[in-house]
Amino acid sequence: MDYDAHLIIAASERDANLYYATKFSAPDPFIFLQVRGQKLIVVSDLEIERAKAQARVDIILSLSAYEKQLEQEQGERPSLLQVLDAVLQEQHIQKILVPADFRIEAADFLRERGYHVDWKQDPFYEERLRKSAEEVAQIAEVQRAAEAAMQEAETLLRTAEIHEGTLYLHGEPLTAEMVKKQIHITLLEHDCTARHTIVAGGDDACFPHNEGSGPLPADAPVVIDIFPQSNVTGYYADITRTFVRGTPSPRVERMYEAVLAAQTLALERIKEGINGRDIHQAVSDLFVQYGFQSGNIEGTQQGFIHGTGHGVGLEIHEPPRISRTDHLLQAGEVVTVEPGLYYLGAGGVRIEDLVVVTRDGCQNLTRYPKHLVLA
Amino acid sequence: MDYDAHLIIAASERDANLYYATKFSAPDPFIFLQVRGQKLIVVSDLEIERAKAQARVDIILSLSAYEKQLEQEQGERPSLLQVLDAVLQEQHIQKILVPADFRIEAADFLRERGYHVDWKQDPFYEERLRKSAEEVAQIAEVQRAAEAAMQEAETLLRTAEIHEGTLYLHGEPLTAEMVKKQIHITLLEHDCTARHTIVAGGDDACFPHNEGSGPLPADAPVVIDIFPQSNVTGYYADITRTFVRGTPSPRVERMYEAVLAAQTLALERIKEGINGRDIHQAVSDLFVQYGFQSGNIEGTQQGFIHGTGHGVGLEIHEPPRISRTDHLLQAGEVVTVEPGLYYLGAGGVRIEDLVVVTRDGCQNLTRYPKHLVLA
Repeated sequence: MDYDAHLIIAASERDANLYYATKFSAPDPFIFLQVRGQKLIVVSDLEIERAKAQARVDIILSLSAYEKQLEQEQGERPSLLQVLDAVLQEQHIQKILVPADFRIEAADFLRERGYHVDWKQDPFYEERLRKSAEEVAQIAEVQRAAEAAMQEAETLLRTAEIHEGTLYLHGEPLTAEMVKKQIHITLLEHDCTARHTIVAGGDDACFPHNEGSGPLPADAPVVIDIFPQSNVTGYYADITRTFVRGTPSPRVERMYEAVLAAQTLALERIKEGINGRDIHQAVSDLFVQYGFQSGNIEGTQQGFIHGTGHGVGLEIHEPPRISRTDHLLQAGEVVTVEPGLYYLGAGGVRIEDLVVVTRDGCQNLTRYPKHLVLA
Repeated sequence: MDYDAHLIIAASERDANLYYATKFSAPDPFIFLQVRGQKLIVVSDLEIERAKAQARVDIILSLSAYEKQLEQEQGERPSLLQVLDAVLQEQHIQKILVPADFRIEAADFLRERGYHVDWKQDPFYEERLRKSAEEVAQIAEVQRAAEAAMQEAETLLRTAEIHEGTLYLHGEPLTAEMVKKQIHITLLEHDCTARHTIVAGGDDACFPHNEGSGPLPADAPVVIDIFPQSNVTGYYADITRTFVRGTPSPRVERMYEAVLAAQTLALERIKEGINGRDIHQAVSDLFVQYGFQSGNIEGTQQGFIHGTGHGVGLEIHEPPRISRTDHLLQAGEVVTVEPGLYYLGAGGVRIEDLVVVTRDGCQNLTRYPKHLVLA
């Protein structure tokens, strides 16, 4: 079907599609229309001057001008959706395409007024998947910041002393919180912000989204997963390393060996046209060959319990996925490659790089070395 | 109408309603149902152990168990919405209430399968407006962090030297970026994170969402607006102060006097049962009495160009608003009180406190002093 317009209503600060379309970051919802090749936004008085300076759009309309006109006509202050209705009529728009996360409130409003509204499966902008050279450079710059933060974290672990199975720094237990604080300060110095950074030791790391807390263990793996966003460009990066300060158990050494082999296998296979599902299956098979089982073990999900990778861009988790779902990789896609193994008692091991898919392989945007033991 | 269930599908890390309902923060979408007084979630293997430990819900179902069963029945891996369909059938749910921001994709899926889906205008959980004593304490704690950061910022401005109209520190121009970095580091030390912090001098401050950049001016107002989120509780706070390092012009002094008088007036009037619209109107009227006009002045929106206040909680901008819209204030609502004036050439002046509405007034959660001039 041919559509008269693409429509997004969102706060672009929290909506990657709208930010991508306009390059204008705003904390409150505004109207965006792409109609006959032109980009049009309707913004409040509070934003209109900033929009004129920053938004990469063709037409900027004043919300308050429509509000005043409609208030005169109907005797009460119109809602944002009533203003949208007026703009759509003015622009002779009838058939509208919206993203899959378009609000039901707005969808019902428009359909009740006779508009034809269809939604498009993610990704709304397919070109968001295939990053331009400029986008790859911006993501790589964020990965540099993440690596600087990883270096600070590794140094803290490396310089810690071991006392009765726990890490100490200057006589105090070295905690996950202390390491995260150092990571976040380093990221700030690189104009990046991270939330939900993971510094998880021991069994904390067995639940991959557990962010970790308290004193960090010696002789056991500590998983450090850093995924900052640039305060300047809005792009994310993502890196994970696993360290043992002290002496790892033979089981943890074997887990690390298997995870590194799985990551190497995946990095070797990634190229344009390969199905991500096949890569994920190969990683899963390799773990089985190494003797590591996955699934419900004594009542807890253990082993390799997440996907092999996900897209990274203006969102930290965005299409595509390298997982059980079919997806033919395309050149320009920026994806993580992050196999991991998690067993209660042993802890977690995950190694994550960020790569850009190319026609005949992939370019690794990650430079940080990989080693388990901090002696 | 009576509904069989309330339904939310979202990533609770970015959906305040779902976090409020479950107290479980997750980066990827999961299913939440409230049915017959019980809270039920469906989560992936990756999250299920963490959910068992953290989610304040009655029933936790395994997404992968449904996926396996449906894959056997239909021969292909089901989508999250197909799993939802199976759960709804199992629970004999037919009539569903969802938030206004429910995805059109999910709404159409359910309606095509014969479910009755209605949405509820924000706020979905009305109790989110009236904060409990525990919530107020958590917000106040974040305001303490914001004030510690404000103190650091004020100290930087206060210790700056003045050279040809610009602020200098240790021989280098003092920039907005340097002040923001110090603010963000101080917030991190208090386990809070801020994005989009505003440190805007001169005409930058005339566009209230301009975050500010470059060397800061002497003898002109610098607006500092800090709105951090606690990394621990998820609650926000919000504070703004305006400083002049050096000597303000008589016009800026008069603007500050008017803004402070307007804020004092609003703080005196706020109490349960008062219409926020009346407070906003009184603030607007006071500015006119002081001789400050608002609206389009020489092609730019100037004067008092935003609302008087907004709700703060698990979102930085949440209901209610103190603005041109009717809203009867209720005890327990936490709102900002932030009149401001903006004129090109003079700059911006805004003073913002955070208060909780009470039966006979309001309790100010803000302790930071108010003074314009840093001599």
